[in-house]
Amino acid sequence: MKAVVLTIGNEILKGKTVNTNLSHIGQVLTYAGHDVFRELTVSDNPDEISWGIQRALESGDLIITTGGLGPTFDDMTVECISKSLCIETQLDKTELKYLEERYHTRGIELTEERLKMVRLPVGSRALHNPVGAAPGVYLKYDGKIIVILPGVPAEMKALLDVVLPELRTGEREYYEETFPLEGIMESSLAPLVEKIMKKWSGKVYIKSHPQRSEIDNPSLNVEVSSWNEKLSRARETVSAVVKEIKENYRDFVGK
Amino acid sequence: MKAVVLTIGNEILKGKTVNTNLSHIGQVLTYAGHDVFRELTVSDNPDEISWGIQRALESGDLIITTGGLGPTFDDMTVECISKSLCIETQLDKTELKYLEERYHTRGIELTEERLKMVRLPVGSRALHNPVGAAPGVYLKYDGKIIVILPGVPAEMKALLDVVLPELRTGEREYYEETFPLEGIMESSLAPLVEKIMKKWSGKVYIKSHPQRSEIDNPSLNVEVSSWNEKLSRARETVSAVVKEIKENYRDFVGK
Repeated sequence: MKAVVLTIGNEILKGKTVNTNLSHIGQVLTYAGHDVFRELTVSDNPDEISWGIQRALESGDLIITTGGLGPTFDDMTVECISKSLCIETQLDKTELKYLEERYHTRGIELTEERLKMVRLPVGSRALHNPVGAAPGVYLKYDGKIIVILPGVPAEMKALLDVVLPELRTGEREYYEETFPLEGIMESSLAPLVEKIMKKWSGKVYIKSHPQRSEIDNPSLNVEVSSWNEKLSRARETVSAVVKEIKENYRDFVGK
Repeated sequence: MKAVVLTIGNEILKGKTVNTNLSHIGQVLTYAGHDVFRELTVSDNPDEISWGIQRALESGDLIITTGGLGPTFDDMTVECISKSLCIETQLDKTELKYLEERYHTRGIELTEERLKMVRLPVGSRALHNPVGAAPGVYLKYDGKIIVILPGVPAEMKALLDVVLPELRTGEREYYEETFPLEGIMESSLAPLVEKIMKKWSGKVYIKSHPQRSEIDNPSLNVEVSSWNEKLSRARETVSAVVKEIKENYRDFVGK
């Protein structure tokens, strides 16, 4: 399944916050069998959120959004996505009860800002938030799945855990290994990487990450990954390729 | 100037690497007067890179790309962007000399993988890389500026420093302050934030970031930022707003 992550938040674009949500979601979805093939970050702006969800839906089967849930004026993800897809919103009765328990029992009023958090698209399902006030949303749209998650990392992670069993494709398993290679330049290893990848014709992916200056003191981390219906097969492929690189790379040193 | 960041790399999408490049570039461009209003991450795939650059050009005046320079098979950013914009590439003579110094003097051959790094779009300018082998690229296209940077953070930062003087808009200055507020829920502060933002009609932006559980032990970081032609004015605005929030927030506690 092709997955697109849509991050919503000025703080990411201004560099105030590092997008660790993307790395968490990317890793979790990859291990759940998805091809996380694009990510878009947009600002807290209705037109931008609308642009983002439309672009995401053009190409992804699974869209995960993060950010813009909550009680402030710039928390507008649910409202904007609903409008953009021409879906009405309504107060979710179950989540409204949670809000009442949360606030009323402490003598705090359910203001419009708070009610907004439980006004969800008609036909969607609330994902109850065990950590914060704003629920996530699970929505089927045009044969695709949209999961709307908060931006606060602890809340995002908790809700992704809740919904994850439904997102596992069961179609393929992912396995990867990363190992260091000292004393070989990335440009020297490149022909070996290409040769091995061709030999395995798409079954394996090899990526080298330079750790230090290429020429004077070369050091690489080499990442080998594979997808397969069976995890054991993916692991076998990766192990065979790691072995092949380790056995052959010395012939390429200094070349 | 509207800026778009295009990140290229499977490792970001699979969550193997956290996109710290985006936060660095976002911060640097914001302080250089740009509105960093979108970011796209695509995989190491020619069609995806082409999709990314086309989407970025649709809306941005300044496009900064990071990732996919270097000698391996999946380093294809320069080639793909050139093809996508129908621009021929050619060996950059100055950068070729650097490569020759780098490799030939150590008796290492200039393989096709290495030459690829200095095959740049016709009409572009190489940004010499003081840290690694692959130069960056500065390209004017259709009245817009495209800056192509490496993905290795140390190289990206060094090249962004090189090109930054040309990217300063000189049109406006950015100033922000972040301060903690204890004992007030985000949903309680929300009406005050909205009121103050309306009063300053677009001159100031206020964003609250919950640090702990909203209801039992609330704690916020409040970020106040402003753009102005003069830095001193932006600073005055932010100071005035910070003061206004601190003087008034207690009236909203528990509401």
